[in-house]
Amino acid sequence: MARFGGELVGDPDVKVRQVATLRSAQPDDLSFLVHGKYRDELGATRATAVIIPAAERDATTLPRIVCADAYAYFAKVSALFNPPPPVVPGVHPTAVVAPGAQVAGSASVGAGCVIEAGARVAEQAVLGPGCFIGEGASIGPESRLHAQVAVQAHCALGARVIVHSGAVIGADGFGFAPEGGKWLKIPQIGRVVVGDDVEIGANTTIDRGAVDDTVVEEGVKIDNQVQIGHNCRIGAHTAIAGCVGIAGSTKIGRNCLIGGGTLIAGHIEIADRTVIAAGAGVSKSLRRADVYMSAIPAVEAREWRRTLALLRNLDRMSKRIRELERRLAELEPGG
Amino acid sequence: MARFGGELVGDPDVKVRQVATLRSAQPDDLSFLVHGKYRDELGATRATAVIIPAAERDATTLPRIVCADAYAYFAKVSALFNPPPPVVPGVHPTAVVAPGAQVAGSASVGAGCVIEAGARVAEQAVLGPGCFIGEGASIGPESRLHAQVAVQAHCALGARVIVHSGAVIGADGFGFAPEGGKWLKIPQIGRVVVGDDVEIGANTTIDRGAVDDTVVEEGVKIDNQVQIGHNCRIGAHTAIAGCVGIAGSTKIGRNCLIGGGTLIAGHIEIADRTVIAAGAGVSKSLRRADVYMSAIPAVEAREWRRTLALLRNLDRMSKRIRELERRLAELEPGG
Amino acid sequence: MARFGGELVGDPDVKVRQVATLRSAQPDDLSFLVHGKYRDELGATRATAVIIPAAERDATTLPRIVCADAYAYFAKVSALFNPPPPVVPGVHPTAVVAPGAQVAGSASVGAGCVIEAGARVAEQAVLGPGCFIGEGASIGPESRLHAQVAVQAHCALGARVIVHSGAVIGADGFGFAPEGGKWLKIPQIGRVVVGDDVEIGANTTIDRGAVDDTVVEEGVKIDNQVQIGHNCRIGAHTAIAGCVGIAGSTKIGRNCLIGGGTLIAGHIEIADRTVIAAGAGVSKSLRRADVYMSAIPAVEAREWRRTLALLRNLDRMSKRIRELERRLAELEPGG
Repeated sequence: MARFGGELVGDPDVKVRQVATLRSAQPDDLSFLVHGKYRDELGATRATAVIIPAAERDATTLPRIVCADAYAYFAKVSALFNPPPPVVPGVHPTAVVAPGAQVAGSASVGAGCVIEAGARVAEQAVLGPGCFIGEGASIGPESRLHAQVAVQAHCALGARVIVHSGAVIGADGFGFAPEGGKWLKIPQIGRVVVGDDVEIGANTTIDRGAVDDTVVEEGVKIDNQVQIGHNCRIGAHTAIAGCVGIAGSTKIGRNCLIGGGTLIAGHIEIADRTVIAAGAGVSKSLRRADVYMSAIPAVEAREWRRTLALLRNLDRMSKRIRELERRLAELEPGG
Repeated sequence: MARFGGELVGDPDVKVRQVATLRSAQPDDLSFLVHGKYRDELGATRATAVIIPAAERDATTLPRIVCADAYAYFAKVSALFNPPPPVVPGVHPTAVVAPGAQVAGSASVGAGCVIEAGARVAEQAVLGPGCFIGEGASIGPESRLHAQVAVQAHCALGARVIVHSGAVIGADGFGFAPEGGKWLKIPQIGRVVVGDDVEIGANTTIDRGAVDDTVVEEGVKIDNQVQIGHNCRIGAHTAIAGCVGIAGSTKIGRNCLIGGGTLIAGHIEIADRTVIAAGAGVSKSLRRADVYMSAIPAVEAREWRRTLALLRNLDRMSKRIRELERRLAELEPGG
Repeated sequence: MARFGGELVGDPDVKVRQVATLRSAQPDDLSFLVHGKYRDELGATRATAVIIPAAERDATTLPRIVCADAYAYFAKVSALFNPPPPVVPGVHPTAVVAPGAQVAGSASVGAGCVIEAGARVAEQAVLGPGCFIGEGASIGPESRLHAQVAVQAHCALGARVIVHSGAVIGADGFGFAPEGGKWLKIPQIGRVVVGDDVEIGANTTIDRGAVDDTVVEEGVKIDNQVQIGHNCRIGAHTAIAGCVGIAGSTKIGRNCLIGGGTLIAGHIEIADRTVIAAGAGVSKSLRRADVYMSAIPAVEAREWRRTLALLRNLDRMSKRIRELERRLAELEPGG
């Protein structure tokens, strides 16, 4: 049980079968305490054993793994208990694989998949049912595409990439030139290149580059319904929460944290290790790693309407202050 | 015509064939007036008959149904005139149903559907073309999934659930533990459990729980492109408009109204019957039912730039007021 | 090389094979300079020739096309070098075309498509793999639907329409009448009608009308993950960037520019040629063409928290100013 380096305290022979939260744990479950504020739940849990941080070592008498980082430890134990389903090699008879596409013998291609000419699916890759792999696109080894993912022509996914259902990798970027009140489409001839160990959420869209490529570096984690415009580059190990929109040609650094619903303008740069809080709007480059915010938390409607009215009148308020300063100076000795 | 309880005023023998708006109605149509402000349109309508609220009883001489709630009445009449298409039982020959999946005899499974082992599709359920039902998932009686819906492994939908195209129920929640500048994936082993009479919009995503389940209670109505994070619970009969993002582990009460584009933080609670206006951001629990807002309506760019500059300088403005107060106090008698 | 009307300066016999950015261009590439600020890149480019605006005529000695609008010129040249793939007529044997559906002989229907009764696919139209065309829907000539698009029953797309993967045209609008704490579904019996030369992005959703139709006029360009509610009308040649949400029954004028992530309320009207900056919220009709904004750019968290606190106290600040004015008036001569 302590194979990932923690210290085992208590009965070394307890057996656990699954992970569970403190509240829902049943006997034979291994649970975990990430933060002292959940200590009450620890007292009431039915779990057989727990993972706890060093600071909480004596917070329970249950058999426990004491470790520096209980959350990372939990992740590893849970991964051990819950491995991905085994890869069943082979191409489902209802899948349509174009002549000239290469599917590795150990790959698994689900029912109704369509793989176009020149595409490559590497060893141990898994395509869920109904995936589309466009002409010349490639899926790296051990990658897993859930049902109904679309990877457009010539896009390239690395090794161990996970893509959830409904994601679209490589649709055309939004590129049009105005002419005479109409729009001329600019062919989008770049690719999307996705590094190793990236995860891409359900219904997320990553557009192909206009001319050069859109790049998602290794280890990036992207949640659901994120939109990444053409020619963006997302730095390694950056995490992007749900509903984020990133306009074209923006470069986001490594190890950034982008909160949910954030909107990021195009053609800007964001420094490595930058944190952007949920709901923020970023319109200019952020060249220094820091925490950035601009969301306003909701309040009661009556209060908000008053605040809005005053916000609209800030200009007047500013003028009244200036006027007061002038009048006061006149009254003051020497004025 | 008055079978849902209103009072029929005028010719009791008029026949109507379809519902229509006041403006677009043709003879033989039944139209409706929800609010007195549309009274001009009532005067000009070509409809054969209308549904009107009691307050507008004498606003027309057309045959009319006078009722307490004209909109609800209209909903019922329209449902009568426009029933869902009949269920054509049977599994399309191009669908792939795994051995061990259970499809009721009266259910309808469209072309290209994939139903994995252990999944169950109940009586009179309808799966549109290209749906994916993962291992062990279940679809309740009379539910209707439009084309291209994905229900991942072990998720459970109740009776009479409607799911629109492109929705993804049960993709992995966004759960990673940081370790050494990289991310460890936390297996998402909970399910999504959806109650009876829920409607889920096109391209909406509802993530499976990390350990425990994500729950959508009965009668909830969810619009398009909504993202619901892992381990959320959405209370019964709550309505969520389009483009809302709800981060993980948040509990939303019953009969709430969540306006479009709202962003709701994770790990918070929202009281029953809370109303959140469109575009708001909610970062803390709202424990008292009320109307909450934080969106700022757009104004001309020049005005907005000035407001923004002043907003950035609120701190300075506040200091100038304090300084004025101090100086004034010195001038005042006794100062 | 100068067939679109520019002036060719330098060697008239240079041959180019592809377009490229100034930075990534290789010999035999044609590049382009849109703005003087990229002049450094122009100096360093390996391109064989460039397209430049008149103002930059002498900024290089490379063979060049000098023209009024370098971006539009580039669009045309790139379209020439990168035509869409040729239409391969025919219906893939795995597609399911209902009796009574009409597919033109020159149309191309991909693997796994499902075309229901009464639907029509016009000459030279292309349906990528896995598309769904509902009962009675129609796809105009030379339109191209990428893989996994859903067009619901009775919706009508014009000529040369492009739809990217995962888009859903014609899901039910979000229409419910409240009754006794529950919701009554209002059948959505209108259609979506899409004009000629419209482009619709990946995972965008356009809902069918409740009673009348939702209309997208000719030449409109819509980016990814846009949500357009029932009964909206989008005026011709308007461009809508990613992640925009437009609530029901709103009318947007012609030639508008709607920035990314904008939220637009229902039942309002927006004038022709209106520009709405990214991230704005629009809650009332905008009847005069102008540039509108309301997004707040993110700043460092500490600064933002202070600004928020002051914003919450604007009311108090306003009262303090009033009080100062009163006290000062008393002190002033004649006070």
